[in-house]
Amino acid sequence: MLWIYISLGVALLSFLVAAYFYRWVKRLPTANPRLDEVGTLIREGAFTFLKREYRILGLFSAVVVVLLVLFFPQPIWTTNSVTTNLLIGVAYLFGTLLSGLAGYVGISIATIANLKAATAARESIQKSFMAGFRGGAVMGMAVVGSSLAGAAIIYLIFQDSNIVMAFSFGASSLALFAKAGGGIFTKTADIAADLTGKVELGIPEDDPRNPAVIADNVGDNVGDVAGMGADLFDSNVAAMAASIVIAMSLGQVPFMFCLISLGLLASIIGVLCSRLGKKGNPSRALNGGTYLTCAIFAALTFVACLLSNFELRLWGAAMIGMVAGVIIGITSDFFTGDDKKPVAKVAEACQSGPAFTILSGFSYGLLSALPALIGIGLASLISYKLCEPLGPGYEMLGISFAAIGMLSIVGMIISNDAYGPIVDNARGVAEMADLGDEVLTITDELDAAGNTAKAITKGFSIGAAGLTVISLLGAFQEVVAAAGVTITFDLMDPLVFFGMLVGAAIPAVFSAMLMMGVNRNSQLMVKEIHRQFNSIPGLREGTAKPDYARCIDISTVGAIRELSPAGLMAIVATLVVGFIGGVQAIGGFLTGNIISGLLLALIMSNAGGLWDNAKKFIEAGNFGGKGSEAHKAAVIGDTVGDPFKDTAGPSINTQITVVSLISSLSATLFLLYSLF
Amino acid sequence: MLWIYISLGVALLSFLVAAYFYRWVKRLPTANPRLDEVGTLIREGAFTFLKREYRILGLFSAVVVVLLVLFFPQPIWTTNSVTTNLLIGVAYLFGTLLSGLAGYVGISIATIANLKAATAARESIQKSFMAGFRGGAVMGMAVVGSSLAGAAIIYLIFQDSNIVMAFSFGASSLALFAKAGGGIFTKTADIAADLTGKVELGIPEDDPRNPAVIADNVGDNVGDVAGMGADLFDSNVAAMAASIVIAMSLGQVPFMFCLISLGLLASIIGVLCSRLGKKGNPSRALNGGTYLTCAIFAALTFVACLLSNFELRLWGAAMIGMVAGVIIGITSDFFTGDDKKPVAKVAEACQSGPAFTILSGFSYGLLSALPALIGIGLASLISYKLCEPLGPGYEMLGISFAAIGMLSIVGMIISNDAYGPIVDNARGVAEMADLGDEVLTITDELDAAGNTAKAITKGFSIGAAGLTVISLLGAFQEVVAAAGVTITFDLMDPLVFFGMLVGAAIPAVFSAMLMMGVNRNSQLMVKEIHRQFNSIPGLREGTAKPDYARCIDISTVGAIRELSPAGLMAIVATLVVGFIGGVQAIGGFLTGNIISGLLLALIMSNAGGLWDNAKKFIEAGNFGGKGSEAHKAAVIGDTVGDPFKDTAGPSINTQITVVSLISSLSATLFLLYSLF
Repeated sequence: MLWIYISLGVALLSFLVAAYFYRWVKRLPTANPRLDEVGTLIREGAFTFLKREYRILGLFSAVVVVLLVLFFPQPIWTTNSVTTNLLIGVAYLFGTLLSGLAGYVGISIATIANLKAATAARESIQKSFMAGFRGGAVMGMAVVGSSLAGAAIIYLIFQDSNIVMAFSFGASSLALFAKAGGGIFTKTADIAADLTGKVELGIPEDDPRNPAVIADNVGDNVGDVAGMGADLFDSNVAAMAASIVIAMSLGQVPFMFCLISLGLLASIIGVLCSRLGKKGNPSRALNGGTYLTCAIFAALTFVACLLSNFELRLWGAAMIGMVAGVIIGITSDFFTGDDKKPVAKVAEACQSGPAFTILSGFSYGLLSALPALIGIGLASLISYKLCEPLGPGYEMLGISFAAIGMLSIVGMIISNDAYGPIVDNARGVAEMADLGDEVLTITDELDAAGNTAKAITKGFSIGAAGLTVISLLGAFQEVVAAAGVTITFDLMDPLVFFGMLVGAAIPAVFSAMLMMGVNRNSQLMVKEIHRQFNSIPGLREGTAKPDYARCIDISTVGAIRELSPAGLMAIVATLVVGFIGGVQAIGGFLTGNIISGLLLALIMSNAGGLWDNAKKFIEAGNFGGKGSEAHKAAVIGDTVGDPFKDTAGPSINTQITVVSLISSLSATLFLLYSLF
Repeated sequence: MLWIYISLGVALLSFLVAAYFYRWVKRLPTANPRLDEVGTLIREGAFTFLKREYRILGLFSAVVVVLLVLFFPQPIWTTNSVTTNLLIGVAYLFGTLLSGLAGYVGISIATIANLKAATAARESIQKSFMAGFRGGAVMGMAVVGSSLAGAAIIYLIFQDSNIVMAFSFGASSLALFAKAGGGIFTKTADIAADLTGKVELGIPEDDPRNPAVIADNVGDNVGDVAGMGADLFDSNVAAMAASIVIAMSLGQVPFMFCLISLGLLASIIGVLCSRLGKKGNPSRALNGGTYLTCAIFAALTFVACLLSNFELRLWGAAMIGMVAGVIIGITSDFFTGDDKKPVAKVAEACQSGPAFTILSGFSYGLLSALPALIGIGLASLISYKLCEPLGPGYEMLGISFAAIGMLSIVGMIISNDAYGPIVDNARGVAEMADLGDEVLTITDELDAAGNTAKAITKGFSIGAAGLTVISLLGAFQEVVAAAGVTITFDLMDPLVFFGMLVGAAIPAVFSAMLMMGVNRNSQLMVKEIHRQFNSIPGLREGTAKPDYARCIDISTVGAIRELSPAGLMAIVATLVVGFIGGVQAIGGFLTGNIISGLLLALIMSNAGGLWDNAKKFIEAGNFGGKGSEAHKAAVIGDTVGDPFKDTAGPSINTQITVVSLISSLSATLFLLYSLF
């Protein structure tokens, strides 16, 4: 139990660090009243959305709790232990609460840090960097601390795999909807603002005359900050849940908590050490922090492993995961980095028009799937083989520890990831509050660094999701085995194959539904913007103010309407396949879902990032620069890429996790009531 | 042996019908010398390309034959039966020859029928329809007849599964390169012609002033006719090969030949009955022929089944395959048909600009994968379960007979499919030879019907490829079992999983490579067209002639250069995975390849078809019609869709088949020499 108490201790430490950073950021000055005014608009818009979203999600969770208590792990009228059913409901609720909290904390700090970073940029890039980075770190510390504390508490009290799964399912299902909702909100506003502002009117990105500009900035917070926070909270919890289920019978749960808590400790040290040197470049500072954290993690866990007599092979599996994460990150950086060949090639293709922009970007997106899939495949193969000699059950634990290793430094990753939208927002508010061109130059540089860092952290999170769901598949088998049924998923079993084909279609349908939502909403918002420009006299000239609230409202209403159908579809499809084809079909379903999900997530995320950076590459003065035909084509590419990379692509991770968890939870039901 | 002789008889009959139609089409009149002149240019361009392509493919085949003889099924120095190695080489060559011949016959007739259909359109739509349809039918009859005759002869002489596989591998590997080459040729020209002609200069599609117009028309023949012919030849042979391997030990090979030969007979009857009524609409005539053929096939085989005492359950499996084919076809028609909601929705989105065109079309493409994947999944599940009671081995035979059932009416399908590019070409030559607006209206109507019919036939061919490769997976297991090793592909085996992840990436990389080829080449051709318009005085006004040959040359050289890398990559990847992970990894590799291949093929084919028809929908006068902003956006969508639907999408089928066949052929090698 030692490592579980240490985990709680480290979690507490992370809360303290988060609180310290929060106060540190909050005490920084704000430039002028206009900045405060803009900041308040963004903050209010974000919290209004969050409130409405959480109301829906609360209602949804209430319904799920009732269903869980009634049916899981077995129908309540067929079981002797009604308590288990009740506790599953409670654990689910606990998961949703913590996941929701992660989003809330993220928005609270992000909507302050943006103003502070903008203000600090008047003094120096170093100060502005610190404001953005420490703002992000509040979120990183809070998210990882609460997921670790949550898992430790649940394990400490119950030591029951179903309850751990239910906790994780709570975190994931909330993340699924929060991410979908946030992703739709942010891209609705972003696309509409870009198309009307940049393309039609030729005004700059964050021009205050654009009615959608506040909605766009709100979107950065509710989509990129809150959505991402909920997502990484969910990945982390899911990886722990899968490990716990597999590790429990092997007595290796303490080692898992050791890895996670030392990972968090390493992240705390990494975050505290991160700063931008006098001549430093911000992307190097961000990536340097990541590498430093990795090194500390490796050293700490190696020592702990020796001291506590843990299996070195399992430690090796965690290291394999961590290294694979770095490698996947570096390859995705190759495909999306603005100093690499693909971005230059796509930017060059923009000169031949939008069709070539799309074709070349999409082609690179397709290519980018290869190294990441090989990386995930090799990491799982090697960690499996490495741990096989330890005995039965350890092979799958090896894969699950590789996922844990990849996610170990998640505290640092979230800090880097949340830094991005904060400085992006800082740029926006600086422009709206007229802080001057120097501030814009600095925030632009910080923003670009955020994009580059994002490529690496995204590599980590997709890779980790891949390994996590592979180990969740193992956990599923474990759960079924616990019910007294030994199954193998034979590829030649037609039920497995049937499940696999259907499972492969789900991420495609899921992303289509989200993108169609963005499509519909942003067309509505474009109409509203046109209406305002046509009916508000003086708006074009900047003498009258636009009606920001209407645009925020369109984004909010649209996102609320569209956030649930896609996620519900995925959950219902899982249940339908399970009740038709039983556990065999579900094994195939999960596999198909993982494969197609990883493939589409990689293609969409990387193609989207590539188009974004190709546009920036042209804006930096290449191939004709801003306003050229190439730039127009690049903007079209970027618009297509927006929902690819910020709505559909990253939500697929969560979709896979949710589907895996609901499968494990429903295993007993599928064994009892399936058609085949 | 009775049914094998009947097969040879029916094949002979189909050759006679092909010869009859060939003479019938050839005797039709040609309108004027200008038409002859244009026709000759197209014909010469097509044969020049074919000759150069076949030279490369001949060289390639020679190398493969040497490798096959040296290494397959076992290294020649380790085997006692050198003859088997030699015969494998011979069978491979026979397969390539027949597959190459299919393309040759197709081009021979298509480059005549286009002129005849254009001329006949001066008289009536009925006559023009008959010229196009019977031209297509020459190809349909020749392709299916020769594949049936080839398989029957190979089986009659050798009765050896390795040799059957080698024959099929010959057909498929040639098809892979022919399709890639043809696909790159046709889209290079098509995109360049559209972008410069329609978008920049605002001249009509087949305007003779456009230097790329002849290359575009040549492309219709070498890409759509020859490439498609080689592809369906390959699917048909692969389905037969998989069936033979599985059916041999069960003594069910005669039933398979019964199904295929009666399917061809049904197609012959269907083709002979097809004609366009006085008030008929051409799409109904095409689809009517397909349904009629299905009905005849069902009736004939049912009677044969009773008379010859074949297993009714196996007949049922074939029927399931056929019905699934029709259903998949109808659903893909929903997503691409110009009278259905998706096309109208995408056309509507075009009004908001190209980004929405791409996003909405791609989203529908993603959605379209669902019904087809469920259809393939259900067809394999039900046919497996239906045949399971017959005993071990029959379940996989059930799936393979479902594939045979789906491909049974392939004679009719090819006729419909080849009809499309013929009437498309007829439209082109009619415009270039100034046959008048009435002729253009008629050929436009015929062309639109071709597009609609294509949706259904494409559904058939992707569905059939899906079922075929599932049964090839069964055949692979059979081949490994024959080597004395019983394997199960357990999803939780890390080698299987590793193979699956890598296998899933291959179709993505394969399509990316093809599309990048098209991208590069068409940018070159756009430059050449600009050069001609700038340097040839009087070209813009129509008083001087463009240099068509240069454009044909760019397409040819580019296609020759780009046709092999993608296919070789897929083959090499298979060998690498096999030698690393052995047969287990290959089992996973094939599964991943099938899943991701089907998914991407469906998404790309359907999104491409949808964009094409959305453009036509706008051109028909909706949302502003030709020349409007919506039309420009739609043209961009269509350009993106071109390589999606005509280069990458359909080539993936063949890639999957080739990879499956090379795996089966190399099974013994992988068993002997793998790393794990």
